[in-house]
Amino acid sequence: MINRLTLIGVGLIGGSLARALRDAGHVQEIVGYGRGLANLQRAVELGVVDRIETSLAAAVNGADMVVLATPVGAMAEILGAIAPYLAKDAVVTDVGSVKGAVVTAARAALGGRFSNFVPGHPIAGTERSGVESSFASLYVGRRVVLTPLPETRPEALARVRAMWQAAGADVVDMSIEHHDQVLAATSHLPHLLAYALVDMLAQLNDRHEIFSYAAGGFRDFTRIASSDPVMWRDISLANRDAIVEMLKRYRTELDGLIKAVAAGNGGSLQELFARAKAARDALMQNDQKKD
Amino acid sequence: MINRLTLIGVGLIGGSLARALRDAGHVQEIVGYGRGLANLQRAVELGVVDRIETSLAAAVNGADMVVLATPVGAMAEILGAIAPYLAKDAVVTDVGSVKGAVVTAARAALGGRFSNFVPGHPIAGTERSGVESSFASLYVGRRVVLTPLPETRPEALARVRAMWQAAGADVVDMSIEHHDQVLAATSHLPHLLAYALVDMLAQLNDRHEIFSYAAGGFRDFTRIASSDPVMWRDISLANRDAIVEMLKRYRTELDGLIKAVAAGNGGSLQELFARAKAARDALMQNDQKKD
Repeated sequence: MINRLTLIGVGLIGGSLARALRDAGHVQEIVGYGRGLANLQRAVELGVVDRIETSLAAAVNGADMVVLATPVGAMAEILGAIAPYLAKDAVVTDVGSVKGAVVTAARAALGGRFSNFVPGHPIAGTERSGVESSFASLYVGRRVVLTPLPETRPEALARVRAMWQAAGADVVDMSIEHHDQVLAATSHLPHLLAYALVDMLAQLNDRHEIFSYAAGGFRDFTRIASSDPVMWRDISLANRDAIVEMLKRYRTELDGLIKAVAAGNGGSLQELFARAKAARDALMQNDQKKD
Repeated sequence: MINRLTLIGVGLIGGSLARALRDAGHVQEIVGYGRGLANLQRAVELGVVDRIETSLAAAVNGADMVVLATPVGAMAEILGAIAPYLAKDAVVTDVGSVKGAVVTAARAALGGRFSNFVPGHPIAGTERSGVESSFASLYVGRRVVLTPLPETRPEALARVRAMWQAAGADVVDMSIEHHDQVLAATSHLPHLLAYALVDMLAQLNDRHEIFSYAAGGFRDFTRIASSDPVMWRDISLANRDAIVEMLKRYRTELDGLIKAVAAGNGGSLQELFARAKAARDALMQNDQKKD
C-alpha cells in the first residue's frame, strides 16, 4: 500500500499506472508533476491524480513512492532536483526503456539515497502519448522488468514489485546489461527501422501517391513510427552502444537480402522468408498460450 | 454479370473474390482449380466454389471469366497451359502484386488472345492464406489497380472493372511501370524489411528470451513476416529491379541513422523521428477521412 504516490510525468505510462493503482485500492493519494500544465490539469479533471504541484520540491514532499515517468533524457536533471527533498524512506523508481544510463544518473544524483532507487521498465505502451491515452488495464498481464543492484534495499525492491503487481503486471528481475540488450533488439531496433522507412518514403517525389497506396501491412508496420520523437531520441542516446550493434547486425542482414534479390536467388530468398515466418508464427503461438 | 467464373487458386484472395461476387449476385457459377486438393475440397464445403476441376483444360472450359489468383511465379506456366482451351471471348485477369513480369508472361503465352488479358492487382490482403481465411468484405473500399495495355480490348477491361466494383472495390488504372514502383515502396519493401528483422533476431543466441519480450509494437511491426514465403519469393524475383532500388535507398537511410546514433547526434535523430511521425500521422488522417 502506498500512502502518497508522486508521479513525475503524467502521460500514457504514468497515467495508466495511477489509474490501475487507484482501481486496485493500492494508493491513498496521487500527486502529479509534469512540464505541460494543460495535460496536468486534464489529469486532475480525469481523476487520474488528486492534485498537482508546480515545483519538484513540493511534488515529492511527504511521498513514500516517487515514480519517474518522463522521457529518459529528462531523468538525470529531475533526480538531481528531487534528491534534497525526498523523505528518508521514500522509494524512487522509473519506467525508462533504458536502464544503464538511468542508473548512472541516479547513482550520481541520489548519493546516499541510491539504495532506495529501484530501476524499472514496464514492457507496455502504445504509440500514443498524454494522459488522455492512459487506461487502467495497460499493464494487465504485461511484464515489468526490475533491474536491482547489489546495494538496492530489499524493502524498496519489494515495494516497487508490489506496486506493479497491484497494477496487474508480471514482475521479473534482470541485470541492467541484459535488459538493455534485449530491449535494443525487440523494441529500440524495430522503432528505429520503422522511423527510417517512413522517413525514406516521405522523401520520394511521389510520396503523396505512395502513402495513398499504403495498405494494411504498411500501416501495421509503421504504427510505431508515430511514437514520441523526444522519447525515442532519448532512448537512442541512452542505449547507444546496444542499439548501434543491433543496427549493424540488421545492416548485415539487409546486405545479404539485397544481394539475394539482385542475383534473383529464389532459393535463398524463400529459405529466409520461411525461416522468419516460422520464428514469427512460433512467437505468436507462445503469445496465445500466455493469454 | 459473369456466367462461369474460373478461379485458378482458391486462397485468401481468390476465395474472398468468389464470396464477394456471389453475395453481389454478379456470378452464376464458380469453378475452382488449385494445387492443394484438401484446400479445394474445403472451398466446395464452404460454398466458395460450386465445383472443382483437376485439370486446367477442364477448369477453363466454357468460362467467360478466368481469374489467376496464384503466386506470381506460377502464372507463366498456367497461362501457357490454359491458352489452347480458352473460349474465344473469355476474359483473363490476375491478382499479382507485380505487373511487369506477369504481362510479359501473358503476352508470350496468350498470343492472339492477349487482348483479352487484363492485368490487375487488388491492394488488399492479410498475412493469412488459404480459403479458410477468405471473407466477402475483403475488397470493400479497397483499391484495385488495373494496368491495361494499348492492345487490351475495352470490353475486357470493362468486364474486369465491373467484377471488382461488384466486390466493393475502387478500381483505378495505372501504368505497369508506375504500379510496380509504387508497390515496391509501399508493400514489397516493408515485407522484406520485416522478414529481415525477424530472421536477424532469430539468429541471436538468446532468441527465445528475445521473442518472449516482444511487446505490441514488435508484434505489429513483424505481422507481415508471417506472409506466405513462396508468394514473396515470387514477388521479389518478379519485381527485382524496383525492389533492389528501394532496398538500396533504405540502406542509405539506415547508414545515416547508424551514423547519427553512433555519434550521439540527438538533434538530427529527433528531427528524423519527428519528420517520420508527421508523415505517418498525415497518412493516418487521410485514411480516416476516407473511411
